[in-house]
Amino acid sequence: MKNDTFLRALLRQPTPYTPVWIMRQAGRYLPEYNETRRRAGSFLDLAKNPDYATEVTLQPLARFNLDAAILFSDILTIPDAMGLGLYFAEGEGPKFERPLREEWEIRNLGVPDPAEHLRYVLDAVAQIRRSLNGEVPLIGFSGSPYTLACYMVEGGASSDFRTIKTMLYDRPDLLHHLLQVNANAVTAYLNAQIEAGAQAVMIFDTWGGSLSAAAYREFSLDYLQRIVAGLIRERDGQRVPSIVFTKGGGLWLEDIAAIGCDALGLDWTCDIGVARARVGGKVALQGNLDPMTLFSQPDSIREQVGRVLASYGEGSGHVFNLGHGVSQFTPPAHVGALVDAVHELSARYHATT
Amino acid sequence: MKNDTFLRALLRQPTPYTPVWIMRQAGRYLPEYNETRRRAGSFLDLAKNPDYATEVTLQPLARFNLDAAILFSDILTIPDAMGLGLYFAEGEGPKFERPLREEWEIRNLGVPDPAEHLRYVLDAVAQIRRSLNGEVPLIGFSGSPYTLACYMVEGGASSDFRTIKTMLYDRPDLLHHLLQVNANAVTAYLNAQIEAGAQAVMIFDTWGGSLSAAAYREFSLDYLQRIVAGLIRERDGQRVPSIVFTKGGGLWLEDIAAIGCDALGLDWTCDIGVARARVGGKVALQGNLDPMTLFSQPDSIREQVGRVLASYGEGSGHVFNLGHGVSQFTPPAHVGALVDAVHELSARYHATT
Repeated sequence: MKNDTFLRALLRQPTPYTPVWIMRQAGRYLPEYNETRRRAGSFLDLAKNPDYATEVTLQPLARFNLDAAILFSDILTIPDAMGLGLYFAEGEGPKFERPLREEWEIRNLGVPDPAEHLRYVLDAVAQIRRSLNGEVPLIGFSGSPYTLACYMVEGGASSDFRTIKTMLYDRPDLLHHLLQVNANAVTAYLNAQIEAGAQAVMIFDTWGGSLSAAAYREFSLDYLQRIVAGLIRERDGQRVPSIVFTKGGGLWLEDIAAIGCDALGLDWTCDIGVARARVGGKVALQGNLDPMTLFSQPDSIREQVGRVLASYGEGSGHVFNLGHGVSQFTPPAHVGALVDAVHELSARYHATT
Repeated sequence: MKNDTFLRALLRQPTPYTPVWIMRQAGRYLPEYNETRRRAGSFLDLAKNPDYATEVTLQPLARFNLDAAILFSDILTIPDAMGLGLYFAEGEGPKFERPLREEWEIRNLGVPDPAEHLRYVLDAVAQIRRSLNGEVPLIGFSGSPYTLACYMVEGGASSDFRTIKTMLYDRPDLLHHLLQVNANAVTAYLNAQIEAGAQAVMIFDTWGGSLSAAAYREFSLDYLQRIVAGLIRERDGQRVPSIVFTKGGGLWLEDIAAIGCDALGLDWTCDIGVARARVGGKVALQGNLDPMTLFSQPDSIREQVGRVLASYGEGSGHVFNLGHGVSQFTPPAHVGALVDAVHELSARYHATT
């Protein structure tokens, strides 16, 4: 590995600077991504074709001095493999043709075999890993059981999660069944990605933050813990770190840090220095610049990057990132300004290591 | 005042049970509200006519055993009075005909005189207060300076607040000017409501939670503090309590509790018992049931109400509410189940007072 700062920071080992990658770094803000997508036909044609997935995964690395690559895929591949029929309605986000409406549909759900039903993802992981040729590590990922369940039950994005929350309050037994199936599926899926070549894995709990504190523990965190406990810890003699990111989960960092993961993703509402003090030396932290910072001028971006770095302070254990995915309207040059600012401004915090 | 439990709880004085009201309790989930709105013509026709505003303010009190009334109005009356032209596009939420696009527009903004430009609100407050006839207290309210600024700069609701955040990072001086004008306007407006008869006031900081921790302090909380410092504290020998509600502000409760307000509104992501321990005996707490609980069955609602009450624990200082406004799709009978459950289940926590 030519640049392993990302993996070292996740394991809280010394690095010469703070590594950085950007959630959704391969995405619509890049003209070359949009060009590949046009050639592929649709988002799903892109995501399901390992050649295209490899091509777009590598695009941001050609432009910016990023310290990690992340598999180009979608968080809803698992329910799609379960037969729910993922599709994207123009301008409306992901939807399912067959959302879970009846108890028997939930009781009948099976755990998809990644080698069979998610072969295209594993092929993409292997191909990207080969193409990276040891330059930077490759991150695999999945949606969390609760976040997957939100889409599976609501049938798409929701502003209030009325359907799944009605199930949560009235039929917790049924939701628990669904979440256990999802947790088994996510564990198998992430382990298959690791075996195909992913060197770190991240679980996106995009909607866990919409729950009450008690419901979060019972319906999201508990299943995250079961997944982390079932992950392959080492591959080819290398530790495979895991990152758990609950957007809006800043109130519960101590609890998340206790489930056995190596790092927490932080959204931009947390002060990262306060977060570090709260989780002590238990985990690394990944984040957490407000993605909207990237609409300001490079000087302002540099100032805000400096504030996040200063708040985290001295020493290792910080992977710089945004607090959420990069907006499709972001000027690409501003992402470059961010990446360069992180590398330049962070060296002083690692001088003593 | 026949029932002053709400005011007493805000001042952390003993009450025989936990008082309850519901954010947006006069709203679209009530058929009688929709009937009045049809007669009025539009939402703004309703809000700007003191007779109609009085009628709909009182409707939920006729159905449910609520412990407070809240003025029926909109959080955007102030920018409307500043000349921005508030309107409601069908199914799209509030918009402004003349959003703030240029620096000179912001520099030219004036603080509206409530007695002149917001007369209809003050007339409604006076008329509602008379109609209540001392049954329960009347709450006045306003949007927060930052939340108003979001709508004024974005021109309406926003999913990412890109425009105002670009201003925040690139032109903090200009945003500070706008926020100070808004803070002056909110202070004058709330004081005018108090003089017209409001017995408590609440500031809705709906979008403060979209900010980073540092930006929240600088661009939202600081102006909330200036407003609270300028509020009339007593009227007719009665203390007029103030409630500050930053949705998504659970990480910052200690800071909000320190600005001089009497109570904090809590959204449903905070555990109210943890929140109580964090803010100590400084302020009362208002909240915080997940509004989606109201789509479950009355038995489930009762159970979840019991959990919130148990989490808060013994003693005064709790005003029960949802953690956000009631959904327009809520069955009205479920609101009744909530109100009755709060009164029945809370008495035991006040037995020793």
